[in-house]
Amino acid sequence: MISANPIAPMSGHSEPLVEFATPFVVFLGDISAQTYAKTALGLIQWRPGECVGQMRLSTATFDAGVPDVTVAAAKAAGARSVVIGSAAVGGIVPASWVPALCEAARAGLDIVAGMHGRLAALPGLAEAAAAGGARLVDVRVPPPGLPVGTGRKRTGRRVLTVGTDCACGKKYTALQLAADLQRAGMDATFRATGQTGIMIAGRGVPIDAVVSDFVTGAAEVLSPDAAPGHWDVVEGQGSLFHPGYLQVTVGLLVGSQPDAFVVCHDPLRTHIASWPDFALPSVPELIERTILLGRLTNPGIRCVGVSLNTSKVPSGQRAALLARYADETGLPCVDPLVEGTGAIVSEIRRRFPA
Amino acid sequence: MISANPIAPMSGHSEPLVEFATPFVVFLGDISAQTYAKTALGLIQWRPGECVGQMRLSTATFDAGVPDVTVAAAKAAGARSVVIGSAAVGGIVPASWVPALCEAARAGLDIVAGMHGRLAALPGLAEAAAAGGARLVDVRVPPPGLPVGTGRKRTGRRVLTVGTDCACGKKYTALQLAADLQRAGMDATFRATGQTGIMIAGRGVPIDAVVSDFVTGAAEVLSPDAAPGHWDVVEGQGSLFHPGYLQVTVGLLVGSQPDAFVVCHDPLRTHIASWPDFALPSVPELIERTILLGRLTNPGIRCVGVSLNTSKVPSGQRAALLARYADETGLPCVDPLVEGTGAIVSEIRRRFPA
Repeated sequence: MISANPIAPMSGHSEPLVEFATPFVVFLGDISAQTYAKTALGLIQWRPGECVGQMRLSTATFDAGVPDVTVAAAKAAGARSVVIGSAAVGGIVPASWVPALCEAARAGLDIVAGMHGRLAALPGLAEAAAAGGARLVDVRVPPPGLPVGTGRKRTGRRVLTVGTDCACGKKYTALQLAADLQRAGMDATFRATGQTGIMIAGRGVPIDAVVSDFVTGAAEVLSPDAAPGHWDVVEGQGSLFHPGYLQVTVGLLVGSQPDAFVVCHDPLRTHIASWPDFALPSVPELIERTILLGRLTNPGIRCVGVSLNTSKVPSGQRAALLARYADETGLPCVDPLVEGTGAIVSEIRRRFPA
Repeated sequence: MISANPIAPMSGHSEPLVEFATPFVVFLGDISAQTYAKTALGLIQWRPGECVGQMRLSTATFDAGVPDVTVAAAKAAGARSVVIGSAAVGGIVPASWVPALCEAARAGLDIVAGMHGRLAALPGLAEAAAAGGARLVDVRVPPPGLPVGTGRKRTGRRVLTVGTDCACGKKYTALQLAADLQRAGMDATFRATGQTGIMIAGRGVPIDAVVSDFVTGAAEVLSPDAAPGHWDVVEGQGSLFHPGYLQVTVGLLVGSQPDAFVVCHDPLRTHIASWPDFALPSVPELIERTILLGRLTNPGIRCVGVSLNTSKVPSGQRAALLARYADETGLPCVDPLVEGTGAIVSEIRRRFPA
């Protein structure tokens, strides 16, 4: 759906740039489920033509749909980087992955990761990289000197994607919405807050890696004062109903002070992924909670649409499902990867006339 | 009011110990307001007999009510440590304080701090400490390996202090409540979450210095499974209505999964301290918000009392003020430093019979 560039630079931004050499391969280790492959899948989707393969520790590993490659085959295909494509709980590289990463580094392939741990702390990897002339690129390192959040009202407009859970479309929706706003002639910038978004955009702030005291301040730095008609499209994180991560979500919400938000939801999910004791909130519950908390720094906050992940919904049921959520909320409801976010762009133009 | 020891060790706790040599002096630099001297004032109050003086850069600095000392006088009085007694916004040591700290370190006095920055990063301080044989003790360093929060229900009971703002009595209330619970024959432990509480208790987790993804997990580690009748009294942080820090408060609330909470409030404050554009919530508003968010991990959460800081209220107006808040909430209302928290202990016993 992308024709415009949703991640064009904006004057005055102060987030760090993140660059790695391409083409690249994604490293999937031994992860078993798609949920944990979202970094790999996001890069394959949003940096098309730059991924030349996947490295898996066994055929039982999740298949991201690109060719399996060895280190030698990756080099032969022109790869310059190995991007760790997993977003495991806690953000740690398992010990069982390290030998394969060392082999790649010794062969001169840069290693790129967005985990909480630092690549240089993995046993032997710094030495392997030095031997092979490879770089270790940690994407999940917040910039130094982040301020405490002020709550001061900033110029320009902001729209945030929020979710009923992790890994339910917040990044994809934000990328698509930024592109569709630009296509509609509006000035819009995608603002990355997670490791995958940062790898896709080439910049951003890894909000969940920021020291807790500075999360609202980091969100303020991420979407600074802008021209009156400009929209920052801020990639959301976690969920306000997530027992492990809601503090990240709350800080991002209040620091972003969004004028508008889009709810992202997987209609087939009943519980928080990997937290089976916690039921998913309904979309109206999430709208109500987001407005309640977001009002602290933006009293005018409102929902402008619902984004459903319908990839696993039988095609004959899609239209009725979208219609049901639209009826329930009185808002446009789309799957951004199927019909785009044009209906949400229209709602934004209607609610926030220039 | 303290006769029992609210910080007695509890078997099975896993937080790090924090120790520094005593007696100590408090360092106040050039801070002007009592709000920012809370570390110094807390240590003087809750480690009685161990503070032998204060170091101030000028007589315009806030006076903590202990003797002014030079480095030489501090040494003569037996001091072994200099504790930085300020909790400035952002937790940074101003450059203008560094020469005096270096002088103390060169004289062999340990330097103890609970700021976000590391002492060894201050220009010249590590060298001064090495020359003087002094230690640099950073209290605000989270333990390594904190987990992601699980939301799993733990055994034992928990009571959390929450506030309408920062610096409104959450630590004092928790210390007093832990002591009063013990005095009533109950098994209770104070759980420190801030630099001052950790310095007082000798252990704890500096929750606002934890990487955002792990705040709920840190709160879970802080108050682990315990015997059925045991109460952890968890020191609260920030405020759910604070535009800079609410993410810390939310993570601590959901990770602590408190059965009960006490609202701490300064009745003379109208706005968030240092955030004049943000009105203080009312006590009933805060009770409602705390229950709404706390229900995620403890559906039975309830308020068991209100703690007012009445230190600046004319004595003739105290009784009526306490009565008004008690009427408004239907809960016991006390100033813990005047009448103790016995009324809140009674409410806890009534609501949570053994």
